[in-house]
Amino acid sequence: MAGDNSSERIKYFVDGPFFVIRLCDPGSLNALNGNDYLYLAELLEKSERNSDVYFTVLQSSGRFFSSGADFQSISKAQETKTSEPELNKWLAYFVSRNVYVTDMFARHSKILICCMNGPAIGLSAALCALCDIVYSMNDKVYLLFPFSSIGLVTEGATSVTLPMKLGSSWTFESLLFSSPIRFDKLDGTIVAKNYEMDNVEKFNDAVLEELKSKIKPLYLPTLPDIKKLLRERYSQELSRANSVEVNDAIKYWVRGIPQRSFKQLSQKQRKHKL
Amino acid sequence: MAGDNSSERIKYFVDGPFFVIRLCDPGSLNALNGNDYLYLAELLEKSERNSDVYFTVLQSSGRFFSSGADFQSISKAQETKTSEPELNKWLAYFVSRNVYVTDMFARHSKILICCMNGPAIGLSAALCALCDIVYSMNDKVYLLFPFSSIGLVTEGATSVTLPMKLGSSWTFESLLFSSPIRFDKLDGTIVAKNYEMDNVEKFNDAVLEELKSKIKPLYLPTLPDIKKLLRERYSQELSRANSVEVNDAIKYWVRGIPQRSFKQLSQKQRKHKL
Amino acid sequence: MAGDNSSERIKYFVDGPFFVIRLCDPGSLNALNGNDYLYLAELLEKSERNSDVYFTVLQSSGRFFSSGADFQSISKAQETKTSEPELNKWLAYFVSRNVYVTDMFARHSKILICCMNGPAIGLSAALCALCDIVYSMNDKVYLLFPFSSIGLVTEGATSVTLPMKLGSSWTFESLLFSSPIRFDKLDGTIVAKNYEMDNVEKFNDAVLEELKSKIKPLYLPTLPDIKKLLRERYSQELSRANSVEVNDAIKYWVRGIPQRSFKQLSQKQRKHKL
Amino acid sequence: MAGDNSSERIKYFVDGPFFVIRLCDPGSLNALNGNDYLYLAELLEKSERNSDVYFTVLQSSGRFFSSGADFQSISKAQETKTSEPELNKWLAYFVSRNVYVTDMFARHSKILICCMNGPAIGLSAALCALCDIVYSMNDKVYLLFPFSSIGLVTEGATSVTLPMKLGSSWTFESLLFSSPIRFDKLDGTIVAKNYEMDNVEKFNDAVLEELKSKIKPLYLPTLPDIKKLLRERYSQELSRANSVEVNDAIKYWVRGIPQRSFKQLSQKQRKHKL
Amino acid sequence: MAGDNSSERIKYFVDGPFFVIRLCDPGSLNALNGNDYLYLAELLEKSERNSDVYFTVLQSSGRFFSSGADFQSISKAQETKTSEPELNKWLAYFVSRNVYVTDMFARHSKILICCMNGPAIGLSAALCALCDIVYSMNDKVYLLFPFSSIGLVTEGATSVTLPMKLGSSWTFESLLFSSPIRFDKLDGTIVAKNYEMDNVEKFNDAVLEELKSKIKPLYLPTLPDIKKLLRERYSQELSRANSVEVNDAIKYWVRGIPQRSFKQLSQKQRKHKL
Amino acid sequence: MAGDNSSERIKYFVDGPFFVIRLCDPGSLNALNGNDYLYLAELLEKSERNSDVYFTVLQSSGRFFSSGADFQSISKAQETKTSEPELNKWLAYFVSRNVYVTDMFARHSKILICCMNGPAIGLSAALCALCDIVYSMNDKVYLLFPFSSIGLVTEGATSVTLPMKLGSSWTFESLLFSSPIRFDKLDGTIVAKNYEMDNVEKFNDAVLEELKSKIKPLYLPTLPDIKKLLRERYSQELSRANSVEVNDAIKYWVRGIPQRSFKQLSQKQRKHKL
Repeated sequence: MAGDNSSERIKYFVDGPFFVIRLCDPGSLNALNGNDYLYLAELLEKSERNSDVYFTVLQSSGRFFSSGADFQSISKAQETKTSEPELNKWLAYFVSRNVYVTDMFARHSKILICCMNGPAIGLSAALCALCDIVYSMNDKVYLLFPFSSIGLVTEGATSVTLPMKLGSSWTFESLLFSSPIRFDKLDGTIVAKNYEMDNVEKFNDAVLEELKSKIKPLYLPTLPDIKKLLRERYSQELSRANSVEVNDAIKYWVRGIPQRSFKQLSQKQRKHKL
Repeated sequence: MAGDNSSERIKYFVDGPFFVIRLCDPGSLNALNGNDYLYLAELLEKSERNSDVYFTVLQSSGRFFSSGADFQSISKAQETKTSEPELNKWLAYFVSRNVYVTDMFARHSKILICCMNGPAIGLSAALCALCDIVYSMNDKVYLLFPFSSIGLVTEGATSVTLPMKLGSSWTFESLLFSSPIRFDKLDGTIVAKNYEMDNVEKFNDAVLEELKSKIKPLYLPTLPDIKKLLRERYSQELSRANSVEVNDAIKYWVRGIPQRSFKQLSQKQRKHKL
Repeated sequence: MAGDNSSERIKYFVDGPFFVIRLCDPGSLNALNGNDYLYLAELLEKSERNSDVYFTVLQSSGRFFSSGADFQSISKAQETKTSEPELNKWLAYFVSRNVYVTDMFARHSKILICCMNGPAIGLSAALCALCDIVYSMNDKVYLLFPFSSIGLVTEGATSVTLPMKLGSSWTFESLLFSSPIRFDKLDGTIVAKNYEMDNVEKFNDAVLEELKSKIKPLYLPTLPDIKKLLRERYSQELSRANSVEVNDAIKYWVRGIPQRSFKQLSQKQRKHKL
Repeated sequence: MAGDNSSERIKYFVDGPFFVIRLCDPGSLNALNGNDYLYLAELLEKSERNSDVYFTVLQSSGRFFSSGADFQSISKAQETKTSEPELNKWLAYFVSRNVYVTDMFARHSKILICCMNGPAIGLSAALCALCDIVYSMNDKVYLLFPFSSIGLVTEGATSVTLPMKLGSSWTFESLLFSSPIRFDKLDGTIVAKNYEMDNVEKFNDAVLEELKSKIKPLYLPTLPDIKKLLRERYSQELSRANSVEVNDAIKYWVRGIPQRSFKQLSQKQRKHKL
Repeated sequence: MAGDNSSERIKYFVDGPFFVIRLCDPGSLNALNGNDYLYLAELLEKSERNSDVYFTVLQSSGRFFSSGADFQSISKAQETKTSEPELNKWLAYFVSRNVYVTDMFARHSKILICCMNGPAIGLSAALCALCDIVYSMNDKVYLLFPFSSIGLVTEGATSVTLPMKLGSSWTFESLLFSSPIRFDKLDGTIVAKNYEMDNVEKFNDAVLEELKSKIKPLYLPTLPDIKKLLRERYSQELSRANSVEVNDAIKYWVRGIPQRSFKQLSQKQRKHKL
Repeated sequence: MAGDNSSERIKYFVDGPFFVIRLCDPGSLNALNGNDYLYLAELLEKSERNSDVYFTVLQSSGRFFSSGADFQSISKAQETKTSEPELNKWLAYFVSRNVYVTDMFARHSKILICCMNGPAIGLSAALCALCDIVYSMNDKVYLLFPFSSIGLVTEGATSVTLPMKLGSSWTFESLLFSSPIRFDKLDGTIVAKNYEMDNVEKFNDAVLEELKSKIKPLYLPTLPDIKKLLRERYSQELSRANSVEVNDAIKYWVRGIPQRSFKQLSQKQRKHKL
């Protein structure tokens, strides 16, 4: 029997019109491996098919929203002895997953809300930037896209979402120099409201409570229609970027460049933990 | 003899290169009915044809710039006994007017300046967002697009103007939750300058005076040429949005959803006045 | 009780995955008035909502597919004494209907098939050009867009569909000079197959029979997905054109120019019939 | 040591400015499995990096240019026992390869010439349609896109290349009904010249000879510059289509629909061979 | 006093709604130098400003419509001793003229009609392809874009007009190989009607006579409005191509490549004349 | 022997991956004449061709980054007695240079960094807005686009860069009224970081030092790839704007309007200096 991508590290529940997805592996700072990202995409599809749901809400736990790709799973993938050519291996491991999860976020029809309890890095940060509305727990959150230091190009349609939301100037600065985008730049561009709280559970609850109260006077069926109208301006751009980004990245994977960076990061990480 | 859409409630005058349109029904908070919006469009066309005019300036009176569609006229339209099918009635009443007034604002070649003395709501707020430059009287102004609470989708090309001017994050927040867009979000995005004044007449005069002084050193014929260059980036987007928005809205009108909301608002309003 | 737009002159039936709409007023050459076009649009929506249907098939009867707008209904509209301003009257009569029926054809998700038994003129011809596939009964069919002779601009998104399908050269020739587009230009551009038949009933049956046989080996659910992929290239263009065309046309209606032409045509027509 | 995708069934050689790729498995009608398509892409990249090369020429052998995806390799893939979820398996097997090979053809900077000695089917036909210039051996060639009968959506950016080259009418007819596009429709749209020959080797030679003679008076460095100018109109469309097509297809693969079709075809094929 | 670009070799007259421009230097096959192209542009502007004119009609004389750029004027330009750097010289001589004349044709609002009495080459051929409607005298006409043999890239927005009108396949074939586009490819794509005549004067008259008869039943003010609607699809593409083409070409001029070709052609030409 | 555009007033040096261009004529406030702008473009091309270079850094000297076009060189150009028509003169002097320098900045593949030590005006300010990242020395910097007061339209693709970076509202305000865009509007939109320094040399050094430190952990080859991905959204818009802007401007030059303004400015300037 075939396996599935579900994991104890990502949970979900439906609460009225809210489909809530929660990253719950604070120990790893909610690092996600390839199957985790696919599971996220599958949950979005589950939400898509549920006609009672109007909002897909991403929440997390611990200090980080998500520290991005799990270095160790990449190292493991790299070391796998296989008769497959390098190209095929990284197409299967990297391209196919990125192109799918990015598309699932980019073409999701329900309102996508991200509750940033802490920093988000890499592909996870790209998914935050693909959400329609982002709320922050406090002003310690940041987004970090370390593509230029890892030896990769933009992922998750960030070549479109960042200029569109953050503006040209800071997009270049943060993408070229792998600089964190701190709260003062996120406020009003990517983050719609800051809750100024300290406790993740309370933050997650507070957002849901406020959403429930906000939607009381609304005629909910208009929401996906309004989102559809807003998406017409950029949805084709997201699809275009998705294809170009993964195909531009594959040459770096075939040459082993990001793998080498991830290995170094993984070793540092292990050291830090000792 | 056929009637016309002119009304005591909307006045205009030409002052040198300025074609000034003034909403002057403070008692109704400058609520506008279908014919009023058409009259606004006709005045824009009058300005368009006047070759001495370089600026079309919208001004208002009283506490609100415009409280939006006049609920009572919609209620009346709904109650009209007619042999026309519901579809035809709302196509004639809603679609045809919205598609026309939005187009007239979107393709106006003179510089469109809006002097916001107070809040603007609904289609009136959409017209403010279609203006090239908006000045505010003070920091109490706001824009409110209550489409999701009324059971409608975006109007007046707001699915394009808001993301373009206000940014993605606050566009979703304000459109989905029918939240007012207060001055702190408008400042520098939709509002170019805040006059920090209290008196509408003085505000209206002050803007005109400052404009007169600003244009003294200018070679005016370049202005429509510069606007034409700037419009090339988004004018086709406005036309596309205009068509899709009205055609997406008609199904809500045929089902009677916004009418029901307007009726409730109208009753509340009457109560408030008692 | 409100009326509806249905008419003895337009019938429909569902035959398996086919929603067949049939113009059946050969005596008037299937001229259509404003309500008839709205009824067509309502039938498209009925087809849209029927999840068993994969194809919406337009068929007709007699010598013409459709001779276009019914002159006499326009003359009648013009003569109606009303207190409404001319602008409002023609917005309600012309703009609102055109913008709606064009949109319904442009955004229909089922496969739109047009069986041209004879010539199509004006807005009816524009709807043929909006169909995904057109079959002709014989080489006597033609499309005629007499906008330049009536004093109107393009309707029904022909400013997009004609260049896209017919090519630039013949689009200019036929639109500017109101020249009929005869079978030799339609073949392979707008018409996918010519049945070379003489009898309309047999032609209508033959197309349906061939369609039934063609779809036997198909996995039908892919069809709307394939259409959706193909539409991504031009659907936004159709919406843009729809808005601009109706708003460019309204000034001609307000000046009474097409009405005068229709009156003349109507009188000639009456004479011919004597 | 990692394997590679090279195969006896696809050869290449460099002849002056021509990088010639030849399918040479006439026994299988040049059916291609997943690795074969990747090898094609790798050869395009090899050509890309060779600064003496100005043309990448695709040639084939036997009766078919290429009969498309190798059914048996798909059946084999399906039967592989694996702990991987279905989604991951088909992302790795289908999405990642299609998105890569399509991109490599779509963004190739050298002039892509396809010498069609016979029919091309499926993804192979899509690659022909991505070439800049196609020459046919005789009028027996055809393209067949059997997506609707297999239970798939368009592949290889055919949702863009076919309407652009073949026109709207025949694109719908051939894609929706899985109808072969015969020479009379290809001539002048996708095929630039028909050599009217019978022998593949002589055809392949004749094309190369004529190309050598045609380029004698040319200043070759202008060719990629001219192609770059021509590509600006549609290259972004190809990237967008690539992403949307593979992501729309994956749901069919996860449900096992194309696999079932391929299995049936594979059994028929075996029967035919007995 | 400053000179002007007018020349005995290009005449014009206004005949009712027709602004007729006639190349009348059959001895040189209507070769045009830099100033001639600018004079053409100035005549288009003259037509633009004449509110009685609805059509700008290009006609010629002798065996060729226009053999393109005058080789000898380019040779002369090259030999001019000047203190100006090569870049500045060719920017002034080539870029500035091409970008201007192309723009004047691309954004002309009157109906542009080209009467091809014979072949057109190079930039002159590009201007034919920019016209809205082309009529041919007989089937000996052809267009030739010898950019790849001269060592230049596409000019006059041909990177947009040719694919749009002629289709992708023959655009690549003719541009890459500097192959003439003969009547069988022009018919129905770029040429709307062939007059099958032998005498240029009679052809020129016949076209004008037929145009006069065609416009009799028309309401002329709709014509520029219809053209405006049709142009919305591609006018921005023409502007984009114009900028990119001239800026891509300049590096070839600075290196002296086209000049060398023109010199060779000029010498051959002189030989042929002896 | 042909001259070249190099000048003592613009220097450059290569420092590792940095190609630094320095305006060093503080006496004229770094006013630039036509040849100076071409020399800037040539230096960009030199940087483009240097495969060790990843950044092109613009720096200046004295109080102004650049006060824009050198009035006196324009006056001189105007007074030149020449047999050339006015059109040709200004095409050669203005159009050809603007279209080239704008294109060189718009399509530069290295990271473009601008170190604003002080105000930038006119075309020089437009070039700042074309840079990927701008750093300011202190909050006294501003951009000034005095097109409407000089009698010109936007230059240097500002009709695209300003709305994209600065937002719609302030773009209209500053372009229409020739208002300086002061630091409070530039901060976070066009300026990525403010160094709050007083000394230009130290500022220039500090930026380079910080850049060197920022790039230490980076894998540099990703930088142009990331820029390429980001440029896909707007590069075609820049090219389109470039063509339309210069062609819209030429009519003002032919009428002598900007020349008159420059003459007045030049006289004032001389007076100020006395």
